Amino acid sequence: MKILVADLEGVFVPEIWISVAKKTGIDELKLTTRDISDYDILMTKRLAILKENNLKIEDIKDVIASLEPFEGALDILNWIRKETQIILLSDTFEEFAKPLMKKLNYPTLFCHTLTIDKQNNITDYNLRIDNQKHRAVKALKKLNYHVIAFGDSYNDIKMIQEASQGFFFKPPDSVIAGFPKIPVTRDYFELKTMIKTLLDK
Amino acid sequence: MKILVADLEGVFVPEIWISVAKKTGIDELKLTTRDISDYDILMTKRLAILKENNLKIEDIKDVIASLEPFEGALDILNWIRKETQIILLSDTFEEFAKPLMKKLNYPTLFCHTLTIDKQNNITDYNLRIDNQKHRAVKALKKLNYHVIAFGDSYNDIKMIQEASQGFFFKPPDSVIAGFPKIPVTRDYFELKTMIKTLLDK
Repeated sequence: MKILVADLEGVFVPEIWISVAKKTGIDELKLTTRDISDYDILMTKRLAILKENNLKIEDIKDVIASLEPFEGALDILNWIRKETQIILLSDTFEEFAKPLMKKLNYPTLFCHTLTIDKQNNITDYNLRIDNQKHRAVKALKKLNYHVIAFGDSYNDIKMIQEASQGFFFKPPDSVIAGFPKIPVTRDYFELKTMIKTLLDK
Repeated sequence: MKILVADLEGVFVPEIWISVAKKTGIDELKLTTRDISDYDILMTKRLAILKENNLKIEDIKDVIASLEPFEGALDILNWIRKETQIILLSDTFEEFAKPLMKKLNYPTLFCHTLTIDKQNNITDYNLRIDNQKHRAVKALKKLNYHVIAFGDSYNDIKMIQEASQGFFFKPPDSVIAGFPKIPVTRDYFELKTMIKTLLDK
């Protein structure tokens, strides 16, 4: 039996931190795992920037509530869920993801949590587990699933490599250059074609 | 982080085989894991009965397409999916489940598959893996989830016992009697209250 796992940001919805950067005008918040591959360094930097600028959880939630999934994202996700099962594996946080999950018709999402203090400051982040994407694929394979994985960024590489079959969706050129053997899809039409092919095999 | 796992038949939708029995008038098909706790014995018997009565996969699919989720099932499932994550763990088959999943707004489902021959006879069943419910809970715990499990029947016991917290939903008296230490909920109101309590803890 087959199951899909996929990244969320950059695949179905915009990068949350980039959106926050645009709305707040803080350019440093535009950095993502596409730019800094070490997630802990990236997150520590993000939290420090939020503190410097006195940005609270509610400010970030306001931005996220104004985001929309990419055009066609809901359609392809609905199609996938009719055809097979999918679990979204994201290094985002439960507190951020909720308004976006509603707009995507509540697919199953495995992610992380934030620590919020009484003044609504984001004081820390809690990775549910290290390498969660990679580990989730291993766990699903152990449950005798043939796992098909796709994502766009550095933090998806181990997930894609561990999967029974894996490919990129809309990766930046730097990611393609670093992993030239991983197949690439560039829009939802190509994504659907790829998934159809892999499910039919 | 918390995640829910739950049985499907008897919890959100009617028992499929009982529905088939009623529609076809074949009383022997009414047996479920509530009556015969060994799933292999039960399934072998069911397939033999289908063959004797010349019932094809399309006949069973017709019955399933006429089933509706229990009153309130979609509401509570939608509520759960807004609050947290849920994965349905069912010993049903992909081929049977699809029309029901549509009516439940496509929650994630882990189940099994059937072997269908060219004459549309169901010739065999393929358990994706033995003890899949129990193993799924173990896998989710290994991914550092606090797993809350509920179901109604014998094939849910190991899942409930392995979970971080577990309880019954609408179990028959025989199941309650066999496992008196497992808490019991009897309708969706009690289910919602129980889930709220366990998520808030």
